[in-house]
Amino acid sequence: MARMRPQVLIIGCGFGGLEAARALRTADVDITVVDKTNHHLFQPLLYQVATAGLSAPSIAAPIRHLFRRQRNVTTLLGEVVAIAPTERTVTLKDGARLHWDHLIVAAGATHSYFGRDDWAAHAPGLKTLSDAFEIRRRVLMAFEAAEREEDPVRRAALLQFVVVGGGPTGVELAGTFAEIARHTLPGEFRRIDPRQARVLLVEGSPRVLQAMPEPLSERAREQLAALGVEVRLAARVTGIDAEGLDITTATGAERLHSRCIVWAAGVAASPLGRVLADATGCTLDRAGRVVVEADLSLPGHPAIQVIGDLASAHSHAPGRPPQPVPGVSPGAKQMGRCAAANLQQRLRNQATTPFRYRDYGNLATIGRNSAVVDLDTPAGAWRFSGYPAWLFWLFAHVYFLIGFRNRFVVLIDWAWAYWTHDRHARVVAGSGLSAASPENGAQA
Amino acid sequence: MARMRPQVLIIGCGFGGLEAARALRTADVDITVVDKTNHHLFQPLLYQVATAGLSAPSIAAPIRHLFRRQRNVTTLLGEVVAIAPTERTVTLKDGARLHWDHLIVAAGATHSYFGRDDWAAHAPGLKTLSDAFEIRRRVLMAFEAAEREEDPVRRAALLQFVVVGGGPTGVELAGTFAEIARHTLPGEFRRIDPRQARVLLVEGSPRVLQAMPEPLSERAREQLAALGVEVRLAARVTGIDAEGLDITTATGAERLHSRCIVWAAGVAASPLGRVLADATGCTLDRAGRVVVEADLSLPGHPAIQVIGDLASAHSHAPGRPPQPVPGVSPGAKQMGRCAAANLQQRLRNQATTPFRYRDYGNLATIGRNSAVVDLDTPAGAWRFSGYPAWLFWLFAHVYFLIGFRNRFVVLIDWAWAYWTHDRHARVVAGSGLSAASPENGAQA
Repeated sequence: MARMRPQVLIIGCGFGGLEAARALRTADVDITVVDKTNHHLFQPLLYQVATAGLSAPSIAAPIRHLFRRQRNVTTLLGEVVAIAPTERTVTLKDGARLHWDHLIVAAGATHSYFGRDDWAAHAPGLKTLSDAFEIRRRVLMAFEAAEREEDPVRRAALLQFVVVGGGPTGVELAGTFAEIARHTLPGEFRRIDPRQARVLLVEGSPRVLQAMPEPLSERAREQLAALGVEVRLAARVTGIDAEGLDITTATGAERLHSRCIVWAAGVAASPLGRVLADATGCTLDRAGRVVVEADLSLPGHPAIQVIGDLASAHSHAPGRPPQPVPGVSPGAKQMGRCAAANLQQRLRNQATTPFRYRDYGNLATIGRNSAVVDLDTPAGAWRFSGYPAWLFWLFAHVYFLIGFRNRFVVLIDWAWAYWTHDRHARVVAGSGLSAASPENGAQA
Repeated sequence: MARMRPQVLIIGCGFGGLEAARALRTADVDITVVDKTNHHLFQPLLYQVATAGLSAPSIAAPIRHLFRRQRNVTTLLGEVVAIAPTERTVTLKDGARLHWDHLIVAAGATHSYFGRDDWAAHAPGLKTLSDAFEIRRRVLMAFEAAEREEDPVRRAALLQFVVVGGGPTGVELAGTFAEIARHTLPGEFRRIDPRQARVLLVEGSPRVLQAMPEPLSERAREQLAALGVEVRLAARVTGIDAEGLDITTATGAERLHSRCIVWAAGVAASPLGRVLADATGCTLDRAGRVVVEADLSLPGHPAIQVIGDLASAHSHAPGRPPQPVPGVSPGAKQMGRCAAANLQQRLRNQATTPFRYRDYGNLATIGRNSAVVDLDTPAGAWRFSGYPAWLFWLFAHVYFLIGFRNRFVVLIDWAWAYWTHDRHARVVAGSGLSAASPENGAQA
């Protein structure tokens, strides 16, 4: 009888899960990758799908296609709803059970409305392709509705766009909205002037891009202002409804009328963190992330590892106190590689290695021609902004895109958009005037 | 006071409406184009979106972008639900009214289930982008579900694909499904062999591609068989449900188990034909199309013209009896130009010209490397099939694609797909396991 190889189950195929599976390429194990969707998503460019610059297939690759040559991987489409650490199984939403000897949980994060889930309907977040299509629909339909609106007050409200959250996603979205209004759409409307659209960015802290050094935050704010984005700093959102939102700043309360609000403010760990805590008694941090050991395993459950945005992990550099790992894609990828290495060490009965995060720096783009870059190099910090930073950002992102074809098509799309100011993916399925529904699908 | 220019309203921006508006480029009129969606769709390639070969923006262009330089056109997003010929207005779904002096109705066609609308849920048709996404989802999800299915009988049913209707769309879909199963997916699954999928094409008449000469129909059938498509001719569909369909052929009744059935059999005119008939008393033919005069105007209503798939029109060549115009895109485009010319002649109080359809021939593709071509040339009919026909088909379609960028990207996509057998758009938003719903959109 053939020896049964250890069964490795990886939940989620974002940056962490994909990297873990790839790092086990030559390992003598059977790997099953389970994901809720059929694609790996290059999330740093998701805002380009939401703003009609890229089509979805440019940044999403079918998971089983990525693993087609890695014969020790089986890809399954399914949503894990329960984890049994003693039986070593997980249960999928449709009741199916999968066995594992080693479990890597890389289920990622979702939006958090800080307890105000009623805001979700009026201010969608941006995590999935469905989210991106919904934001694309809202932005484009706001201009369409404005072209048909006779009342100047309602028309102005339709042409007011609000992004909540001044992190990288919020800054990218606000900058691109301003570009669409100023450069893409003018000339295409007959009754409105899209350049009169207002784009507001609302941030709770006193500066945008908090993960960046302060001078770069200030440069980003200036570049946003140059694009026409109005930035409200140290602003607290107190309410969101179908007609707009209420904020409070140092100067008092303000009502912002808007029919297109995007939520880029809060991130919460996947609900699987709670599932794991209920099953194992492990600890969750305030954001719902699973507190892991230095080697990324679950305390008391060495066969379970948690990585990526779902993990509350620390970096262990020799001679320095442990540092929390930021929720960025290089962190998830490095955790994926570390988890795979530790799993193999455990199979060989060797000691595991503490996770060490290598921070190569931070990038954020603001719009056409502007970005900020903060790199850690052996020669010291290297910080720059403006056009050179934008070029750097562009090539870094295209380089890391999964799959050669995507890189090539994305470069063409961007070259085209750059020269023409056009955004080719300005297509909304169905009538678009209301959210996606079976009725829309049935229209001729 | 400025002289009021004649107001031309065009309902629908398919091939007919787009061509009519463009032909009025230099006319001294104000044109409003109303469409239910924000894009013009290159329908001959819609099957490529449904089969994941092209992304939606490759074959769909925002209508207002197409008219950005044509200053006498205003584009409005809206659905016309009523037409008042005496008041010369139309009413949109949201109650808004638009005035017109001249009306061109180019609302196209939708699917017809021959009175069995309950079949629609189990066998979607292919007319809109939403339809294409739904078919893409069903095809890809059938393979995903089969990979997870343990029961061999249910697994076989999941791997059985049925296309109803042997016209150009049905032949293209069936041929491409077979290609996906034989060439794109093998190697990506671990538990099933996608090559074991069965693709069936069910046609009511004794041959596929009825609009083609009989020898080309036979060549198409042979090419389909070579791709692995089982063709059932002279087969009548008697029932469709969630588990499969029932057909009757000369040899008796047959039950085809399938979880992925596509309807490419029946076409019905847009419901606006009925609206027009109720408002004006005009005649509809059996397919619900509006019977028009020789100059494409409505009998008794010279200010209303009906073109494209909604019109039951005839071609009037000198010295020959009138011939019905086929429901193909060259017919719609030629009607669009004729309607625009007659409208201008009427503005000048000149006599209008009867419509004359120029038939340049027929193309249909069957799959990678195969097609059939039937051209009418001044030197006589030119008929060929196989690889040269496929190349001809490819360049003809890319040439007629709207917009330079699209043509370029589509060519790259096809060159890539040709060499790698890959289909890059195999991406389904949401979990995909159930139809698009708000819940899918909310998944992380």
